[in-house]
Amino acid sequence: MQKFDSSMMDFEERVDIDDFESEVMERIYSKPLLIKRVNTTSQIAIVGANVCPVESLDYEVPENELVNEDWRSRRTVQIFQYILLKWAFALIIGLSTGLVGIFNNIAVENIAGFKLLLTTELMLKHKYYKAFAAYAGCNLGLATSAAALCAFIAPAAAGSGIPEVKAYLNGVDAYSILAPSTLFVKIFGSIFGVAAGFVVGKEGPMVHTGSCIASLIGQGGSRKYHLTWRWLRYFKNDRDRRDLITCGAAAGVAAAFRAPVGGVLFALEEAASWWRSALLWRTFFTTAVVAIVLRGFIQLCSTGTCGLFGEGGLIMYDISAAKVVYSTPDILAVILLGVIGGILGSLYNYLVDKVLRTYSIINERGAAVKILLVIMISLLTSICSYGLPWLATCIPCPADASTSCPNTDVSGNYKSFQCPPGHYNDLASLFLNTNDDAIRNLLSTNTVKEFHISSLFIFFVAVYCLGIITYGIAIPSGLFIPVILAGSCYGRLVGRLFEPISKLDVGLFSLLGAASFLGGTMRMTVSLCVILLELTNDLLMLPLVMLVLLISKTMGDMFNKGVYDQIVKLKGLPYMEAHPEPYMKHLIARDVVTGPLITFSGVEKVGNILLALKNTGHNGFPVIDEPPFSDAPELCGLVLRSQLLVLLKGKAFSKDRVLAGNKVLRKISELDFAKAGSGKGLKLEDLDIQEEEWDMYVDLHPIANTSPYTVVETMSLAKAAVLFRELGLRHMCVVPKSQGRPPIVGILTRHDFQPEHILGLYPHVRFQQ
Amino acid sequence: MQKFDSSMMDFEERVDIDDFESEVMERIYSKPLLIKRVNTTSQIAIVGANVCPVESLDYEVPENELVNEDWRSRRTVQIFQYILLKWAFALIIGLSTGLVGIFNNIAVENIAGFKLLLTTELMLKHKYYKAFAAYAGCNLGLATSAAALCAFIAPAAAGSGIPEVKAYLNGVDAYSILAPSTLFVKIFGSIFGVAAGFVVGKEGPMVHTGSCIASLIGQGGSRKYHLTWRWLRYFKNDRDRRDLITCGAAAGVAAAFRAPVGGVLFALEEAASWWRSALLWRTFFTTAVVAIVLRGFIQLCSTGTCGLFGEGGLIMYDISAAKVVYSTPDILAVILLGVIGGILGSLYNYLVDKVLRTYSIINERGAAVKILLVIMISLLTSICSYGLPWLATCIPCPADASTSCPNTDVSGNYKSFQCPPGHYNDLASLFLNTNDDAIRNLLSTNTVKEFHISSLFIFFVAVYCLGIITYGIAIPSGLFIPVILAGSCYGRLVGRLFEPISKLDVGLFSLLGAASFLGGTMRMTVSLCVILLELTNDLLMLPLVMLVLLISKTMGDMFNKGVYDQIVKLKGLPYMEAHPEPYMKHLIARDVVTGPLITFSGVEKVGNILLALKNTGHNGFPVIDEPPFSDAPELCGLVLRSQLLVLLKGKAFSKDRVLAGNKVLRKISELDFAKAGSGKGLKLEDLDIQEEEWDMYVDLHPIANTSPYTVVETMSLAKAAVLFRELGLRHMCVVPKSQGRPPIVGILTRHDFQPEHILGLYPHVRFQQ
Repeated sequence: MQKFDSSMMDFEERVDIDDFESEVMERIYSKPLLIKRVNTTSQIAIVGANVCPVESLDYEVPENELVNEDWRSRRTVQIFQYILLKWAFALIIGLSTGLVGIFNNIAVENIAGFKLLLTTELMLKHKYYKAFAAYAGCNLGLATSAAALCAFIAPAAAGSGIPEVKAYLNGVDAYSILAPSTLFVKIFGSIFGVAAGFVVGKEGPMVHTGSCIASLIGQGGSRKYHLTWRWLRYFKNDRDRRDLITCGAAAGVAAAFRAPVGGVLFALEEAASWWRSALLWRTFFTTAVVAIVLRGFIQLCSTGTCGLFGEGGLIMYDISAAKVVYSTPDILAVILLGVIGGILGSLYNYLVDKVLRTYSIINERGAAVKILLVIMISLLTSICSYGLPWLATCIPCPADASTSCPNTDVSGNYKSFQCPPGHYNDLASLFLNTNDDAIRNLLSTNTVKEFHISSLFIFFVAVYCLGIITYGIAIPSGLFIPVILAGSCYGRLVGRLFEPISKLDVGLFSLLGAASFLGGTMRMTVSLCVILLELTNDLLMLPLVMLVLLISKTMGDMFNKGVYDQIVKLKGLPYMEAHPEPYMKHLIARDVVTGPLITFSGVEKVGNILLALKNTGHNGFPVIDEPPFSDAPELCGLVLRSQLLVLLKGKAFSKDRVLAGNKVLRKISELDFAKAGSGKGLKLEDLDIQEEEWDMYVDLHPIANTSPYTVVETMSLAKAAVLFRELGLRHMCVVPKSQGRPPIVGILTRHDFQPEHILGLYPHVRFQQ
Repeated sequence: MQKFDSSMMDFEERVDIDDFESEVMERIYSKPLLIKRVNTTSQIAIVGANVCPVESLDYEVPENELVNEDWRSRRTVQIFQYILLKWAFALIIGLSTGLVGIFNNIAVENIAGFKLLLTTELMLKHKYYKAFAAYAGCNLGLATSAAALCAFIAPAAAGSGIPEVKAYLNGVDAYSILAPSTLFVKIFGSIFGVAAGFVVGKEGPMVHTGSCIASLIGQGGSRKYHLTWRWLRYFKNDRDRRDLITCGAAAGVAAAFRAPVGGVLFALEEAASWWRSALLWRTFFTTAVVAIVLRGFIQLCSTGTCGLFGEGGLIMYDISAAKVVYSTPDILAVILLGVIGGILGSLYNYLVDKVLRTYSIINERGAAVKILLVIMISLLTSICSYGLPWLATCIPCPADASTSCPNTDVSGNYKSFQCPPGHYNDLASLFLNTNDDAIRNLLSTNTVKEFHISSLFIFFVAVYCLGIITYGIAIPSGLFIPVILAGSCYGRLVGRLFEPISKLDVGLFSLLGAASFLGGTMRMTVSLCVILLELTNDLLMLPLVMLVLLISKTMGDMFNKGVYDQIVKLKGLPYMEAHPEPYMKHLIARDVVTGPLITFSGVEKVGNILLALKNTGHNGFPVIDEPPFSDAPELCGLVLRSQLLVLLKGKAFSKDRVLAGNKVLRKISELDFAKAGSGKGLKLEDLDIQEEEWDMYVDLHPIANTSPYTVVETMSLAKAAVLFRELGLRHMCVVPKSQGRPPIVGILTRHDFQPEHILGLYPHVRFQQ
């Protein structure tokens, strides 16, 4: 341990301080990144541009005079307001996410519908090249707009957004991930991207959108423009913000899939790292609101007031018409489907990872290159969508078709494409449709022969590959739809192959195929099961869907991690796993504490604090009381960088080294410590400390958290990690086992529990059980 | 702090030691109990007989040489076995719970069916008194059998069992709650009780049954009969047992309602206090197995091989025939239904509480009185069921009835009772049926006029009252069915009243009524929603069911707690709430530590240990190292009573006060510390320590947990409670803030966080925010 003293320190020493022990680690963020460990110290090499900070969140409830003062001053009416406001927020999040979901769907259906109408009209006139030009041109224009929005306004809006939300709910706040600009780009970028015919979904972006909305609402106005509502200060902390964003993520899923219960379970199973019963109830309320909003609008739109938005939008694949009967051979077929689906799903994850790593290098070269990549993928997608249907032979329309055949509508199956009257092109029904409609066609029941086996095979390969190379380009892109699309096509293919021995409808096989792919890539169980049931409105499929999900998840877990976990890791976000790694049992807390530790006295010189803030990136500083303030040195608390900045700005300084708690309390209230939005807090540069004030003293007692959670230095790292994770800490103090030593050994942060850090220090423990 | 020294202690002093600080608190258990605080010390007055111990569970992972040794000795193959076994257990739990569920249903349907057939036949011959005698006689016989089983073999099997399972999963092990005898009585008592026509369900008992099965399987053989399987030792700890029992509880719900997803959610929302993603998956697997078992047997039974078990058993109320259309007036009606349902639900809780308190006094007087109470309630139920239908007027059969009318079958609607041919008695269709069939009749759709409003009203009042007075008598009795029965009757009543302005089918109103009552009593949301949807197979009702549940839960929460929480409290089980009470913010950890604390030296005299074990009920003893083993006194760890007993039995004693870790390790392995089943561990009486061994020394270092979680004495009680609850601790060490004092201030246990204890010490803090 090293006591900080400005006089002791010259420039060389300062540089020696390991900035990487701090949590505000400079990391590339806006694109998938590669982090390489260059040596065994705790340094991290950064590859790429767009360096931006990642900040840990703190769910610990601090205790000090200031907080106590604040609690005492709260009256019952304020607590009632707080509770009321929580529910009001949930209501508003539900309403706005529902409305955005509706808007998104109407916009996509209308834009894509216009594009498809134009193409179909030109096709009917046999102007095939013009049709392709129109089709590819529309796609290209939309794709470029989406890419431009992403590249220039909010790079954080690219991709699914679920990994980032997941990391946020685990306690990692990546810069601008929930900013208003991200929200804006996410909504419009997603509309353009999906309408551009990419093999991407709007589901992941909806989750991100819901979370952004929740974050904005929780922020409630801006302190910069003096628009802060006083009540809202109670929500300006990481705990309440986490709850709101959990509600937002659930609302996003509910709006995307029209699956309110599935939304709650998604938030619970995949997104959230901490959960409690009260939150379950609040999320449930939020998604109920979403469901009601959606229902209302769909009723409104069913009267034809929403343009081309008809049945097409808001995916809901009613398969309840199919009779669910199955026996032993069907179950064997389903098991096989699950096994292969799981393997293909984990292969999907593997390939997505490889592609992301490649794209991260390409995307580093600037916005223009990003947009160029999007243009290339867009052209490739257009060529596939328009070109591949030419490989299919025209099929005579079935006599008992429930819809018109051939179909020249915007959506629907039995697309005529180049075929003569009375015939349809089955591949065109899949390719020249929105993704939602393609899935609906694949899931259609009682239509065994609608698609040729060869067509299904071509579509499967094309979609599988396009899905992989599309994720990672600079547009908002969900993973659900590509996976469901590939999975349901695969399922229908298997269903056709098993047709001779199976009684199960191919439409139901299609559903099971989608389940197997989802299980194999995302590795969720209960939430996917409920989402699929809510989507298809057929509870009788429950046992089979459960079976397939269990099998495919088990298969997938043998090979690699779930796709979201993989992306979190790839982005270098310091995610805390629920379980400590086995090797952590063989290390003790003291082993991974990296120094030197900077501590303050209970009453500290302003200059020392300023220097420490300037020269280190540390966010937490232990405060040690020494004689005359105590008999022996003792740990008096932990003070945060943000608190010190507020305290210094308040200038409650004294000339002498005396306790001055009341003076501080008079100048500063708990309100001043309300956490600002990401990256908007007070900075060191905002302070204006005069030369003569450097030698004055400031009392840290009133603001220091007097009871930080501590562990003894000899506690195993695994046990310390459990404490850190379960309580959602940002700093954990390590105290000495024996007496007579300085009262603190070091501080553990999220970073110290990362495998990279630990294995960097102790490479040999990796293979210990 | 007081150092324990046998020479210092005489009998009077020993009696002074406050036994109630320990956790093995003597409590009445087998029946609802009253605990009164008699003074401000931590003593608890016990009212009633059947005193039996309650033991806390410990989810902390201990760390010491022994455990490390054990970890080092584990090979990869063993770890693989462990994981495999986990899944095998889940499979076995699913299979056995599914089979028990089937057995239960077949037995109930056949016994109750025989009884009802007999009664109906006598009715048809107009032998009304004989019919009543047969009906009441059968009921009485079955009721007495159930009561005798409960009263004489396993008193713990009475009641629902869900509160006890909930408490177990919170860390409170009540004696014999998961014993084999309890399982036996629960299965057969539930069959007899339900068949006896009581207004009780088999759902709560199924949850308890599933948990008992899981506990038995986890125990895996008996050490007493040398039948222990070596592998299973890894499961002999509270953590793994908790996981198994969570799976068991989920399997129970899945088997009771045929609702696999609902089962998982029930375990998550209501039963479990700790949850993690891996468990979600395992529970899901268990309930999937249950679903498959049930499906298989139902297919088997549909061929008529299960006697009278036809459609009747395994509740599944398909309402998907009804068209779900609703508009604004319907929604207003539904909101009103939710509000009143919530109020009636919380009134139900209030009355159940009052009745339970009364019964607990009656039941104290012995087994005979218990049985007498059951007989009285049985007679009352028989009189109501047989007598009240005479109040109804006969209704002409509808022309378009889908089933035969009047119906003389076992189950079904349109019971003829005393009516002339071509007429039916609507009240008899509800009363003279199994509860499952009565609910099915109430939920029947497209049959608006089937029941008179007056009949519905009579049935509602009767069932509401009977449900309240039946819970608490000495039979296994679930709460779900009474609540659903009363709720669906109430819903149908409201539906009939709103008929002129509402388009919603009365059968759907009935479902919503059941939802409102369930929400009002049980206060669950997501799990009830999913259970109801799985029961009724109609996803389109989702938004309305959500709405009703939210409203009724909100209304209920205004008045009192959920019924299970209430019963846990009434039984005096020291349940740890998820959130600390507001007043805990104003106390610090030191405030509630009650002394005197008994500590041991690192190498302690055998006699001192024996005396401490004998004279206190403490379960955890801090071990303090003093010179010459350390420079200054330091906390070396925490040793448990059970560990000390094993250590003393092993007799690894030394003549001198020296470190003898290796000697201890040679004599004792981690296997010896495997936790025995409830109440089956080593007892002080089992030790055989010679007089001369009293003065020998034993080294506690190898077995003491070297890194117990600690808090500083000045930490607020609220913050300490969060740590205690989140990590599932049994003992939490409170350490001094300043140096130079003894290294431990005291130990906090579950008991110290109970409101009774805290408010006993500090009555004035109750109203502080």
